[in-house]
Amino acid sequence: MARFFGTPDGVSVGQSFSDRRELQRAWVHRPGQAGISGTKAEGSDSIVVSGGYVDDEDHGSYLIYTGHGGNQRRPNKQIADQDPEAPGNAGLITSMVQGLPVRVVRGAHAGSVFAPLAGYVYSWLYSVTSWWMETGRDGFRIVRFRLDAIDEQTFVDPAPAVDHDPAFASAVVTRRIRDTAVARAVKELYDFSCQICGVGLRGFEGRKYAEGAHVRPLGRPHLGADDLENLLCLCPNHHTQLDIGGILISDDMVAVQASSRDTIATLIWKKRHRVARENVAYHRSLWPSASELAS
Amino acid sequence: MARFFGTPDGVSVGQSFSDRRELQRAWVHRPGQAGISGTKAEGSDSIVVSGGYVDDEDHGSYLIYTGHGGNQRRPNKQIADQDPEAPGNAGLITSMVQGLPVRVVRGAHAGSVFAPLAGYVYSWLYSVTSWWMETGRDGFRIVRFRLDAIDEQTFVDPAPAVDHDPAFASAVVTRRIRDTAVARAVKELYDFSCQICGVGLRGFEGRKYAEGAHVRPLGRPHLGADDLENLLCLCPNHHTQLDIGGILISDDMVAVQASSRDTIATLIWKKRHRVARENVAYHRSLWPSASELAS
Repeated sequence: MARFFGTPDGVSVGQSFSDRRELQRAWVHRPGQAGISGTKAEGSDSIVVSGGYVDDEDHGSYLIYTGHGGNQRRPNKQIADQDPEAPGNAGLITSMVQGLPVRVVRGAHAGSVFAPLAGYVYSWLYSVTSWWMETGRDGFRIVRFRLDAIDEQTFVDPAPAVDHDPAFASAVVTRRIRDTAVARAVKELYDFSCQICGVGLRGFEGRKYAEGAHVRPLGRPHLGADDLENLLCLCPNHHTQLDIGGILISDDMVAVQASSRDTIATLIWKKRHRVARENVAYHRSLWPSASELAS
Repeated sequence: MARFFGTPDGVSVGQSFSDRRELQRAWVHRPGQAGISGTKAEGSDSIVVSGGYVDDEDHGSYLIYTGHGGNQRRPNKQIADQDPEAPGNAGLITSMVQGLPVRVVRGAHAGSVFAPLAGYVYSWLYSVTSWWMETGRDGFRIVRFRLDAIDEQTFVDPAPAVDHDPAFASAVVTRRIRDTAVARAVKELYDFSCQICGVGLRGFEGRKYAEGAHVRPLGRPHLGADDLENLLCLCPNHHTQLDIGGILISDDMVAVQASSRDTIATLIWKKRHRVARENVAYHRSLWPSASELAS
């Protein structure tokens, strides 16, 4: 197995490393210089947060992390646009889509209360929960990632130890679906059937199942609204694809395959329910190659 | 909206109530006597844990809760089998399938360190994460539920306040998919395509997505193994249906609709991968009406 995800054997959270070479030898962060380890094909297994990008934000339990490229040191600033298809950036997007855990290493630097005073500290596993493009402080397009610390309980709780492949021993992550109040209402409106394919899943003794999908995501930095104008009732397959950029929705409310632009279906609507155009446009803007899809 | 899910306005976690009438008036637990509030159609919105069933276990952050029926008081014991289709029990199963939050009220009783000394305490929202049948201490078949406290962060974190329908203000729950190390291996083995329908989902720029599904669930009380003999690579739709009892797998590895027994498909296998018969049999045993499905 080429790339190594999770916490390596013998490494503990909070452990200090004096330099990049030590991080490398302990399999905590393999590249000698790059801040992001990984490729599009395999995903990204680790990052170093060390103040190299002026737009980074460290909130402890979550980070807003700037992608790779276009920056200079001394003085530290962006001097060019970034590309989501550059290897490290593309790796973090793959980690998001496939739910891979990313080791976070914090390096000493000013401006973060979470950074060590010297050297590097291994700071646990995070999942990439969101990515998007924006214009950074220095006026260039940057790729941004939100990473959230993985709930430690998930690892400790009841799962038996995995000893088949020690290389992966700690690689456990979760995908979470937030089911809000209004999501419940939209599911009832559609009697738990998908607005894209019409499928209604059934559980034990005919119980119904569907998911409320927020088109503009909830949570920072997107701050999509939890209201009917931002919600679709979808089956898990279409919800997942909407969340990972496999499906886009045009201004005239047609669901299309992101890669081919083939039409999947015109969305099914009940009376008195419409999703706002600005929300489907916001969703498309999260997946840059798609932003030209207007109607 | 008939049934009320989530924490009522003006009620706080840890709040005391002197008797069942006070609980009723505050919309914390509506029934005058029953321990479970709810129906199969609407789901269950609240339970009272008060030592009425000898098999109950209170672990604080999670409960093993015995369903309704077949018990007597003084002395407290089971005197008959329980039925998963009795209203309260069926309501809790619906809450599991649909991800509805259940208010937990703890009543004073001996034998639990989490119970109040007198009266009742509102103890936050839990999700039903599992249910099954077993033979209880007194020799009768009982319905059992595992309820896990919902992560408070989920509510507090970034979601904007929902003020459209105050009745649902706190009704936010999550479905979690635990993606372990071995799950990753099984997904790679099948190149991220579903062993039931062959579908392979794609995200941004062709990134692949599938889920590793544990046939015998991980976690207490099932303690399914996190190994290849207990894992399938599935699309989210088929994974969800497996988890909620909509799909069963026969001993000869055919996926069938639980309700109709119609064949969906014979599972697709790669060389050197088989799921153990005992695991598909265990999964079927979780959904009682299905247990006769042998091969």
